Amino acid sequence: MARALDLARAAGRAGEVPVGAVVVKEGAIIGEGANAPRATNDPTAHAEIVALRAAARTLGNDRLEGCDLWVTLEPCAMCAGAIAHARIARLYYGASDTKGGGVEHGARVFAHPTCHHRPEVAGGIGAGEAGELLRDFFAARR
Amino acid sequence: MARALDLARAAGRAGEVPVGAVVVKEGAIIGEGANAPRATNDPTAHAEIVALRAAARTLGNDRLEGCDLWVTLEPCAMCAGAIAHARIARLYYGASDTKGGGVEHGARVFAHPTCHHRPEVAGGIGAGEAGELLRDFFAARR
Repeated sequence: MARALDLARAAGRAGEVPVGAVVVKEGAIIGEGANAPRATNDPTAHAEIVALRAAARTLGNDRLEGCDLWVTLEPCAMCAGAIAHARIARLYYGASDTKGGGVEHGARVFAHPTCHHRPEVAGGIGAGEAGELLRDFFAARR
Repeated sequence: MARALDLARAAGRAGEVPVGAVVVKEGAIIGEGANAPRATNDPTAHAEIVALRAAARTLGNDRLEGCDLWVTLEPCAMCAGAIAHARIARLYYGASDTKGGGVEHGARVFAHPTCHHRPEVAGGIGAGEAGELLRDFFAARR
């Protein structure tokens, strides 16, 4: 999660909402991402999506069997769906997102019987620091 | 939708689940996609995501204001989330997807109060042909 927080800080410095993510397999980072939809003109370029795509390139496989995703903020519905498609084994996230989250809030993507793959989920990891980054970012923009 | 069906057929010929999508702005196609997660080793490479990313590159903007998405199958939760992020104005889709859909089934991404953007939605457009493509594809694999 330390590396994901570094990536979140980098996103914030670039003027993006500060969220970072890494994919880990057998203790090694195989893909990482910083939130970058504005800079890349890509509405799908959330940290999780960038990290999942990078990890899939590393493995040469669209299924990331046995991999964990660490992300500083609760994933949205788009990212939760991508996590299911990628067959991520364990999802560790930081701050809860009552407005945009899609795991414990809103669409609750993994909670539906039709969800074809559910990772193990643990939230609140490094939530203090991740939430502070986000609050500082939005406070500075007001 | 005719072009989206062509893209779906191309995906099927390539061994991917046959789904195609186009983004239209003021009557012109500005991005298109064929489902390709296997060929590209990208768990996010659904037709809709490929088309949205292409259209955003065309416009040089991650928000596709005033754009319509045409897709041959009901979008999944990931793609519905991406459609909301991209601010798609109108979503037209073909076949309903009782197993994997995230618009009228499962996560029903646009139905939650926290969904920050809802397109107008019309389903069942060209559903006969889109559904036949999918049925033929899966029948041939059994």
